[in-house]
Amino acid sequence: MPLPKDLVEGHRRFRRDIHASERGRYRQLAELGQTPTALVIGCCDARVDVSKIFDAEPGELFILRNVANLVPPYEPEGFYHGTSAAIEFAVLGLKVPHIIIGHSHCGGISAYRKMREGENIASEGPSFLGGGDSFISRWMTLLEGIELNESDVATYGEVMAMELAGVRSSLAKLRSFPALKEREAQGLVSLHGLHLDIGDNKLVQLDPAHGYFAPII
Amino acid sequence: MPLPKDLVEGHRRFRRDIHASERGRYRQLAELGQTPTALVIGCCDARVDVSKIFDAEPGELFILRNVANLVPPYEPEGFYHGTSAAIEFAVLGLKVPHIIIGHSHCGGISAYRKMREGENIASEGPSFLGGGDSFISRWMTLLEGIELNESDVATYGEVMAMELAGVRSSLAKLRSFPALKEREAQGLVSLHGLHLDIGDNKLVQLDPAHGYFAPII
Amino acid sequence: MPLPKDLVEGHRRFRRDIHASERGRYRQLAELGQTPTALVIGCCDARVDVSKIFDAEPGELFILRNVANLVPPYEPEGFYHGTSAAIEFAVLGLKVPHIIIGHSHCGGISAYRKMREGENIASEGPSFLGGGDSFISRWMTLLEGIELNESDVATYGEVMAMELAGVRSSLAKLRSFPALKEREAQGLVSLHGLHLDIGDNKLVQLDPAHGYFAPII
Amino acid sequence: MPLPKDLVEGHRRFRRDIHASERGRYRQLAELGQTPTALVIGCCDARVDVSKIFDAEPGELFILRNVANLVPPYEPEGFYHGTSAAIEFAVLGLKVPHIIIGHSHCGGISAYRKMREGENIASEGPSFLGGGDSFISRWMTLLEGIELNESDVATYGEVMAMELAGVRSSLAKLRSFPALKEREAQGLVSLHGLHLDIGDNKLVQLDPAHGYFAPII
Repeated sequence: MPLPKDLVEGHRRFRRDIHASERGRYRQLAELGQTPTALVIGCCDARVDVSKIFDAEPGELFILRNVANLVPPYEPEGFYHGTSAAIEFAVLGLKVPHIIIGHSHCGGISAYRKMREGENIASEGPSFLGGGDSFISRWMTLLEGIELNESDVATYGEVMAMELAGVRSSLAKLRSFPALKEREAQGLVSLHGLHLDIGDNKLVQLDPAHGYFAPII
Repeated sequence: MPLPKDLVEGHRRFRRDIHASERGRYRQLAELGQTPTALVIGCCDARVDVSKIFDAEPGELFILRNVANLVPPYEPEGFYHGTSAAIEFAVLGLKVPHIIIGHSHCGGISAYRKMREGENIASEGPSFLGGGDSFISRWMTLLEGIELNESDVATYGEVMAMELAGVRSSLAKLRSFPALKEREAQGLVSLHGLHLDIGDNKLVQLDPAHGYFAPII
Repeated sequence: MPLPKDLVEGHRRFRRDIHASERGRYRQLAELGQTPTALVIGCCDARVDVSKIFDAEPGELFILRNVANLVPPYEPEGFYHGTSAAIEFAVLGLKVPHIIIGHSHCGGISAYRKMREGENIASEGPSFLGGGDSFISRWMTLLEGIELNESDVATYGEVMAMELAGVRSSLAKLRSFPALKEREAQGLVSLHGLHLDIGDNKLVQLDPAHGYFAPII
Repeated sequence: MPLPKDLVEGHRRFRRDIHASERGRYRQLAELGQTPTALVIGCCDARVDVSKIFDAEPGELFILRNVANLVPPYEPEGFYHGTSAAIEFAVLGLKVPHIIIGHSHCGGISAYRKMREGENIASEGPSFLGGGDSFISRWMTLLEGIELNESDVATYGEVMAMELAGVRSSLAKLRSFPALKEREAQGLVSLHGLHLDIGDNKLVQLDPAHGYFAPII
């Protein structure tokens, strides 16, 4: 199968209409390297376009995307820790001053909700592993033990409160990385917990002083 | 530290100028769910904006981003396999018909080049692990054993040939997942190896019939 | 009579040559459901191939075709309203963000022109109803009372101006459906009036700001 | 909202690459009029592209598309009978020698299945009519009273058997139009009942001699 035509044409439009206005900036970034303002840990979901949501410039955001934008705990033993490697590279290599967890209601969270309610999502459909096991169900166990925040439930309902609990959990996991926690204490990096509503593209942010989520604009 | 002002203003611009023209599409996708045309495995690099490069519509691309857009081998034993989980979700859950590896020359590959030349990048700077070890160097060992393609070297030079070897390697790793290989054999999914030049934003694609990379437009 | 050989051979060609490149996309859409970008209300005319005119991908367009691509008024009393049912399903069920009226000069409009000039097309030929009545003449009364736009006449001539008046009329009829009008006001759906020239396949589109038709490319 | 970019680009591709090879044929058809081989009554579903499935030439197929490709009964009293008008125009005006019912598993049929099982789909979601009523549920009552064929159930399962029953029903409804039945008796028009599987694009056809559905190729 060839590449989808819409993508080829989209690239043509990009080259013709969009790229021109930023040609110098891209060349500069290629030659001098990137110095992004923030690491964004976002979801793979096709309805979430992180750069567009912030109308970001080239080079502005270093973006990690995985299912449900989860952060694993600090595990010095593990091996192919793609997420931890990206965080390490952004924080210590690129020294980004901001880390943003931009959550959105994706299939991962709703699958996890079913797991909590007793369903065995691992055996729900075909998987790469078979036998009632799957990479995705293992990945989603990163959410194990999360607790809903009562004020989140009251303001946003139970479904979104679970998503917000995921954001709170990922922030806590980030702070389990000693070197990151140290940089936060020194005021060199700041953590921000955001939640994007896919339907209307509104962003709410965790207010660390008061512990609740409120619109950013 | 509050959120960077450029991001807050960018979100305001997005809500005011950009979101309006796609409001209905976002609402539709939120209510009916996503059926993306492709899974793109891209790099976290701040100079690579996958959706923009393809001028993609909301919902069109399911995007996984890790350092150097690597794919780990099929490892049924491991646990927090974020990359494998995302591929599994896209291929078996969302049944995407196309997988695109969009490589670009990022810090990861150039770090790996130094490793190959004898430098110990693990001890190069600060890391989350310390003691000459790092998550990023472990992650980059996914490239161990890759061979440069002679025609790639002749056409594009040694630096870019290493990046192209990374794309070839990720394609091979994808085919190590039995269920993915089976779907490819059935014509249900097609793999595409792309390389983006960050400086001029040109895309080249691996021609599977002849084994070399050529421009897509 | 068996199926025409051209159709059987055409289906064989489709299965052998065309289907293969989109097999995965069709399978995905069958299993996950459709989320089309637009509802197109087109004509049954054999010279109008809506999907081809837009080189559309599988799943992209939800297409309603009736004679002269007419829209009946909002009639809560009626019963077998096939057109209203399809619009309702697309707008409220599939939540399509775009509705396109793709008109083309078909027999229906030219029959209606004759009616306006005093001929009784109802009695023109055989009909399912007989006695000077026909389903088609009843259907075409949906155009009753349409006025030619002077600028359309000046630019495109009287024949095509009648067809353009049909497009304008169908747009107005769509806006007589309260729920559709409400979604348009909320920015969730956008209406586009197009006209296709069957001879050279050029498309012109109604510019809502200025009220005239202009080429889309 | 402007027209979706993918559609504008698709039209550009059509004009540049596809239209050229058939320019003469389109011009001829515009000047002489259409003489289609068949009327196809198909579904609006975005996953069904009737012309493509038969790799049809311009002018070959007169295509009526409504939800679930239903045919209403012969009702001389009604008014805006879009489907009956199109059939009348095709059969008596264009004198098509073949009528094809190309069914596919769409939302309409599955909604109707729920109705049969006691659910009130009319009140299932928002509708143009409100108050537990909808155009789509009224339209689907055209299927009322259909019976599953036992051999269909045995060969294709209950879900597809319901779709096949829809095809059988539409063929019977067509024969309730006296003028159509008469032309069939004279050998001037032939009715064909087809069913398309959206997932693998296979077509089966009702064998009128034996009463079962079998692949056309």
